[in-house]
This record gives sequence, structure tokens and C-alpha cells, in this order.
Amino acid sequence: HRITHSFPAHAHSISSVEIPFVLLPGMAAESESCNCSAWAANDPSGVLSPHSFNRRAVRHDDVSLRITHCGVCYADVQWTRNLHHDSVYPLVPGHEIAGVVTEVGSDVKGFKPGDHVAVGTYINSCRDCDNCNNLLENHCSNFVFTFNGVDTDGTVTKGGYSTHIVVHERYCYKIPDGYPLDKAAPLACAGITVYTPMIRHNMNQPGKSLGVIGLGGLGHMAVKFGKAFGLNVTVLSTSESKRDEAINLLGADNFVVSSDKNQMEFLKNSLDFIVDTASGDHPFDPYLALLKVRGTMALVGFPGEIRVHPATLNLGARTLSGSVVGGTKDTQEMINFCAANRIYPNVEVIKIDYINEALERLVNRDVKYRFVIDIESSFK
Amino acid sequence: HRITHSFPAHAHSISSVEIPFVLLPGMAAESESCNCSAWAANDPSGVLSPHSFNRRAVRHDDVSLRITHCGVCYADVQWTRNLHHDSVYPLVPGHEIAGVVTEVGSDVKGFKPGDHVAVGTYINSCRDCDNCNNLLENHCSNFVFTFNGVDTDGTVTKGGYSTHIVVHERYCYKIPDGYPLDKAAPLACAGITVYTPMIRHNMNQPGKSLGVIGLGGLGHMAVKFGKAFGLNVTVLSTSESKRDEAINLLGADNFVVSSDKNQMEFLKNSLDFIVDTASGDHPFDPYLALLKVRGTMALVGFPGEIRVHPATLNLGARTLSGSVVGGTKDTQEMINFCAANRIYPNVEVIKIDYINEALERLVNRDVKYRFVIDIESSFK
Repeated sequence: HRITHSFPAHAHSISSVEIPFVLLPGMAAESESCNCSAWAANDPSGVLSPHSFNRRAVRHDDVSLRITHCGVCYADVQWTRNLHHDSVYPLVPGHEIAGVVTEVGSDVKGFKPGDHVAVGTYINSCRDCDNCNNLLENHCSNFVFTFNGVDTDGTVTKGGYSTHIVVHERYCYKIPDGYPLDKAAPLACAGITVYTPMIRHNMNQPGKSLGVIGLGGLGHMAVKFGKAFGLNVTVLSTSESKRDEAINLLGADNFVVSSDKNQMEFLKNSLDFIVDTASGDHPFDPYLALLKVRGTMALVGFPGEIRVHPATLNLGARTLSGSVVGGTKDTQEMINFCAANRIYPNVEVIKIDYINEALERLVNRDVKYRFVIDIESSFK
Repeated sequence: HRITHSFPAHAHSISSVEIPFVLLPGMAAESESCNCSAWAANDPSGVLSPHSFNRRAVRHDDVSLRITHCGVCYADVQWTRNLHHDSVYPLVPGHEIAGVVTEVGSDVKGFKPGDHVAVGTYINSCRDCDNCNNLLENHCSNFVFTFNGVDTDGTVTKGGYSTHIVVHERYCYKIPDGYPLDKAAPLACAGITVYTPMIRHNMNQPGKSLGVIGLGGLGHMAVKFGKAFGLNVTVLSTSESKRDEAINLLGADNFVVSSDKNQMEFLKNSLDFIVDTASGDHPFDPYLALLKVRGTMALVGFPGEIRVHPATLNLGARTLSGSVVGGTKDTQEMINFCAANRIYPNVEVIKIDYINEALERLVNRDVKYRFVIDIESSFK
């Protein structure tokens, strides 16, 4: 299992074995015996339609959950449309999963039926390497994506646009009582993606200043975490149209249109931290120059290429650091933090039969700020 | 005083006021009354010749030192030859200064006549900003370069290719007894330039692994610090010819020619840290890929542009961090560390009348690993 270095959004690939997008024998055949209903894309058009398949029976260390909600991540667009040239159809996307435990294996200690749980972007790893031992399973070279991955038993994984999922308990997270499941779902990818670098780089020091580049599913969570950490938050956006919501809905302290040279000049050398969630190509020097001496920019998007003048880094002793989702320990901590601090993603709840329009709107950035599929009522 | 973002080597500029390279009235006039002998460049040819000028009298917080040695940094080439288009002639280079205190001002507490002291790349700063208060005077926006800078009194600073210098005591460092002055000189720039990021990024954890890119004045010090910190040190060089010295003279554990794809592949994901001292243009992805998850590359050179694929940073949660020289506290600590651990730069001691050949050899990278001018015996 090799992670390729070519894909533009969240780390999410199947394997080095390139499987062409064909209907593998038997895979698309729906049968009376299928135990899981879903929606799947069947070819690179990316159009989703009803599908059913079999999930495995619960093993001794597995948790089975009835999925109630699944967030819609841009990764779902990328793989349903085969943008990474490794999609295996039929492809069931979804890696922001929330639900209720229905069954646990004999050795499962952490969960019991009725528990509210989340599943994120990966559902397996080797559990034996340095990264796994450091609870950075997201960096295990044998980790398995929640959908379109190849699991250790050789099966191609299927994601959360489905009625239930069976997962090793290590890759399940407890959702505290009272936290709404629709809002819990996006924490499992959008939430942890920005939380991980913020904690790693000590962005939780009250009174310090944070810049957030981009105000989508990730960026709006960075603003919320920033405010919960007691930071002074500046949203940096290409579009003036986001000012009102950034300030009045999300609680940012400041809003700057990045094309405004006067405002950018005024901000120079003023920020302790920046979280860059932009996935489109953009210059880096103008943003890095906003950092104080020894300031840190965390990169969580996948633009085409980073170009930086060395002096921008050196003369300010500035740091540019990459990040991708997070480990199991950080993910559970992040969910607990959201519950304790009443941090909720802003979601637009949809039913599964709206998913093709939703994906199109997502491509056009027409969502505030995350679609979440109400799986439970969609499959009644 | 604005630091421009265009120069390719150590931060070292005069000011935003662009002064053409003319002989300012009176500046080149040598007189019987001049109290300081020196060698200076008189035009962008960069050829140095004897020169004399006046240093200021000692003020209440000044230290005056008889210069015994001055290291030769690539910055000396850049400014004597006007490569940054801001050189003021006659220009006396040199910012790796070692000597003996001859006189101190009435308020000086830290030094007394006879003390061995060093002076580095800057001789003043505002002493009032956040950076100065954090003892990161190297990042003060009003800091004054040791040569070709404009001091607060309006004079153009002159460096260590001269018989004495007068400096505010804050910018002087004590050289412990018994540490040879010729070897102390390069610590003030080459030493602190690599020491600062190594300490900042916790590269002093025994048993961890360090890669050093480039084996010049800076790189050979990074190897020595790495070994003193108990690291496993791999030298990454473009030239096989440096293998023997890297291993047998400098004590590196491993040597890899960066053009050897097999060796580079073998090293992937294996290093905790890298110090990149290369100032020539070079790719970054192949080196960053050598870092383990959450590994850090410290950049101290000034190549033309940094280009990195985001996935190289994100998927390994890797960090690229810039650095330039160091603050006064770190500089004194570094000198003390060198004395305590018997770390000595490898120097080739020359007399001042060899300086023009030495600068030419430096341009051709023909030095192991730092020229140091024996000022004391040159001006007898």
C-alpha cells in the first residue's frame, strides 16, 4: 500500500495496485441477501444511485453501527468522479460517519450497544509501526481508507452513504451524550483536519492571534476552534461576500479580503498562527509575511504546488508545516473538546436522494458549511 | 530600516535607502588621525586593499576590542562585490570577530579589559521591541548589521577586517578561557546560524537522526553540533569527494550522494531532522521525503525559490522552517556549549594580504571549512 503524491485533496487513495474502473464480477449484483443498503457511483460520471452489498459479520474486536448521518467531504467528489484515477466501482463514498452501536465483538471493551459513535477517514492500520504506536495511525503506511481502500482481508472498503458499517473498535470514537449526531459527523474529517495542527503547534494559547485562509467546511471549524482557544481570529478570504457570516455567524474578530493590498500590508508581522485550508492554487509569500517572527502556518489543503521565497521563511524564522486528518487519540480528544465547549459545525442536512445536487453544489462552493446526509430517514 | 526580500545569502542589508556605490565625501580620505587600520573594497570589483578610518570613542555602555581574528563569510563576497546593490564604499567587511577587550564604558557590567570576546553579524538593535525583549535581536526590525549597515548615529558600519571595533556590550559575547580565538571567530556567524534552529526544533535529543545538506562553513558545524547532541548524522552532498572528510574528519555516521537515487530511496522516511545549508538552487521534495512523520527541515541557506508539493508536507506532517543567525542569548549559549564540548570549527588561518585570493577560493568552494584572518599578525 503506497500513498501516491499526486492527489489534490485529503489523503485518500486505494493502493499502488491500479484497478481500472470496471464492474468487478459480482460486485454490482444486488441480491436479496445483501445486508447493507447504500448509494454508490457506478462510473466516473460520479452520479450516485441506490446500491446494496454485504458488510462482514462482527469479529471479536469489531463494532457494528447503524449509521444515522454522514457528512459530505470534497473527497467524495474526487473519488466518485475518479479524479485520482484509482476508483473502484461501484463506489460508496462517505468518511464522516455518525451512528449508534448495534453490536460489539466479544473482545470489545470501549463500546456497547446504544453508544453514539463516529468513524472517520480510515478504518484500519497495521497497529504495529511507530506511527500506530504513537497513535498517529493516520500516518501508518498500511492504513486503510474508509472507502475505496483495500482492507487487510482484500475487500474494497465502502463508506458511510450506507445503512451500517462494521469497524475495528480502535477506529471508532465515542460521541458524548447530548451531542447531536448530525453535527458530530463532520468532526470526523473536517474537524480533526484542522484540530490536529492547531494542537500540535500550540495554537491553543489564549490571547494569541490566528489567521484562517479559506472559509469552507475546514475553515469554518478552524474559526470555531480558534475562538474556543481564546484566540483573536482573522478570516482571510478571496470574497468580500463572506464578511458578514465570518464575523456575525462564526464569531471571527476580523475579516480581510486577501486581494486588498492595504489590509494585507497592515496585517504584516501580526499573526502568531495561520491555518491554510485553501485547496486552490494561491501564493504563499503574502500570507507567510503576515506571521510574526517564529510564527507557524499549518497547511491542510492540497494546492498544486507551494512556492515560497526563502527569505520569507528565514528572516522571520517562520514555519510552514503540513498536516492531514489526525490520529485516534487526537480525534477522540477533539470530539470531547467540541462537546465540552459546545462547538458545532454548521451543517445543511439533506436526504440521500439530494446527494447528486449536493455534490454539484459542493463543487461550486455553495454550502454553509457542510452537507450532512440524514441516512436514517433516507433509507426508511 | 526595511529588510528587503531579495538577497540570496545571510540576512545582511543596509537599509531601504538605496545608496549608490560612490565614494562619499571624506569617507575614503586616509589621515594621520585615523585610529583604525583595515582592508576595504573600494568598488564592485570587490578587490580589497589597505584602508584606515576612525572608530568612535567608547561610550558608557560600549566595549572596545582589539581584533585578533576575523572569519570570512560568503556575505563578505556579496557585499564587497555589491551583489545586493546596496554597498557603500569603501566597505570594510567581516562579521565573525574575535578579540581582546581593551577598554569598557563606565556602565559596562559584563566585560573588563583582557576578556576574550566575539562580535557577530549585528552590533545594534532597538532594545525595546518584542523581538529584542525576547532576546531575538536578530529579528528586530531596527537591528544594525556589523558592516555596511547604518547605525543609529547615521554612520555606516565597518566590519572585522580591521584592527579594533567599538560595540555596545549587549552585542558582545564572552569567549571562555582557553578557547582559541581563531576558532572562536566563525562561531559568531556560521556557528550560531546552524545552532539556533537545531536548538529551537529540539534537535538535541540523543539517538535521533540528523541529515545535513551541504558541507561548507555552516554544514560542517551542523555535523559537529549533531554529534555533540548525540545524533546519528548523515551528510547529504552533491559530491562524492567529500565522503572521506565527512566521515573521518568530521565524524559523520553516514554519507549519501544526493544524486544516487537508490541511496536516497533507502533513506526515505528515516530522518528526524534535516539542516539545509545549501544556498544554490536545489529541489526540496526529495530531501523532505527523507524525513519521518512530523520531521523538521531547518532552512538556513537562501536558494532562489522553494518549490514543494503539498503532499510531501501534508502526508508526512512535515515541517519546513526558516532561520537566520540567532539572538544574543542563544549566541552566548552556543559559544559556551562549544567550549564545554570542545567543538571547534575547522579553519584555514590566513593573513590579510591573502584575502583577495581567499575570497576567490571561497567563491569556488575551495576551503575546509572556514577562512579566518589572523588580524593581529597581519597589521603588525
